[in-house]
Amino acid sequence: MRVGIIGLGLMGGSMGLALQEVRAQLGIKSLLGFDSNPIHAQMALSLGLVEECLDFEHMQTCDVLILATPLQGIIDILKQLQPPKTTTIIEIGGAKGEIVRAIPPTIRPQVVATHPMCGTEFHGPKAALKGLYKHKIVVLVDTEQSASMHTERARELFSAIGMQMVKMRADEHDRHVAFVSHLPHAISYALANVVLAQESPQNILSLAAGGFRDMSRLSKSAPDMWRGIFAQNQGRILEALELFITEMQQVKGWLEAQEWEKLQTWMQQANRLQEFM
Amino acid sequence: MRVGIIGLGLMGGSMGLALQEVRAQLGIKSLLGFDSNPIHAQMALSLGLVEECLDFEHMQTCDVLILATPLQGIIDILKQLQPPKTTTIIEIGGAKGEIVRAIPPTIRPQVVATHPMCGTEFHGPKAALKGLYKHKIVVLVDTEQSASMHTERARELFSAIGMQMVKMRADEHDRHVAFVSHLPHAISYALANVVLAQESPQNILSLAAGGFRDMSRLSKSAPDMWRGIFAQNQGRILEALELFITEMQQVKGWLEAQEWEKLQTWMQQANRLQEFM
Repeated sequence: MRVGIIGLGLMGGSMGLALQEVRAQLGIKSLLGFDSNPIHAQMALSLGLVEECLDFEHMQTCDVLILATPLQGIIDILKQLQPPKTTTIIEIGGAKGEIVRAIPPTIRPQVVATHPMCGTEFHGPKAALKGLYKHKIVVLVDTEQSASMHTERARELFSAIGMQMVKMRADEHDRHVAFVSHLPHAISYALANVVLAQESPQNILSLAAGGFRDMSRLSKSAPDMWRGIFAQNQGRILEALELFITEMQQVKGWLEAQEWEKLQTWMQQANRLQEFM
Repeated sequence: MRVGIIGLGLMGGSMGLALQEVRAQLGIKSLLGFDSNPIHAQMALSLGLVEECLDFEHMQTCDVLILATPLQGIIDILKQLQPPKTTTIIEIGGAKGEIVRAIPPTIRPQVVATHPMCGTEFHGPKAALKGLYKHKIVVLVDTEQSASMHTERARELFSAIGMQMVKMRADEHDRHVAFVSHLPHAISYALANVVLAQESPQNILSLAAGGFRDMSRLSKSAPDMWRGIFAQNQGRILEALELFITEMQQVKGWLEAQEWEKLQTWMQQANRLQEFM
């Protein structure tokens, strides 16, 4: 089996490292890569993320193609691909609705739409991590649109690299991740920008400890990747944003009115999150 | 030297553990404790956080008294204390303006107002951690109001347990921590409550990965402690909240108007945080 990865950054590069560990189990003969940025392709080779880089045309001869570019790239690639019917195409974009709607009908049964729930705030080939996917969840969306042969192949691959699979509709996925991933990223970028806009951010940040570090970590994420996610999941993110802003305005109201009892009850409610995670 | 800790939760209990490691260096003969909650006092003893619990009256015979209760408790205690002039009182509240204004003039030279920049989302004696203070920053505020003998004693103690000291005015401290600690806590509580208010939070949270975990960690913090901080640093927190809400509204505006270029530039600005930490 020849496996090809398109997009050799954090996600694609880490996929290359994960697949190398299970080559024998999956019967992988060649692990190939492509990145539209030639510097990234070169880096991926010297870091050993894939064993050979091909041009885009030749990638289509792979038995399994993994699409790991920013979201708009995934849609553009899906529109260009004309692989043999036996090729399994696994795309791993972070918002699913627009991608699944954009898949050309001719290749729809070959495409398995997924979202591995993992990542870090770093990006590019150097950010690739061997264990990134291990023991993490991957969401498979709208699987009834994919031929079972291709879904099975994707399942086998994710299972081999140690992932747990969850099935979901694309719209359900997009609503959920708006809350657990996209809104938190918007918040973290906003928090960082608020502090950076102050007169002497270095003085303020000299007092930052673990709490601020955690809350601002996501603000280091790649703007081009996140631009795509915000654009493609715009509606759901707007809903979550609105609820969150209303919540923050309520806190502000309680502080202004010195409603400490209400504030405390509200914090106690938030403590209930511990029952879930 | 007899050292007494009033308030045997996360901060006070961890202080007990830290001081035990440097007993000889500081010449500590007894490590005493008091907690207004008798269950916590008993727990602190059985966990070995202090070696004996005294009643409040007898704590006043200590050479060094560390006040580690929630903020309103610190103010109440400062108003009741009538220790010998040689007793050093170190209070470690998370907001400083109201506390320093509330210190009775009779004991003002004895009080060293500080804020160790560390903690976890857990609370109570069981949350005490041996290394909590090590290699962390402690802010000493308005030190010109304390007698140098007492400031020196506090410095010696913090230095022995491995802390770095920073001097600051109380108002400056309160403004800085509103941004790096108090606002992030309000955000985290709000994020948790927004998700918990959805129809099936368990489905949403089943997709939560590292990002959401980090962003929601602070929402597990103790509501009674945070009520005190919000009340005592109300003005500064309101300023930070207002800036943050405005920032979130701007993001919402860009999403509504599909201003992806502006959104990307804004995220790139946030990336600059990496230059500072």
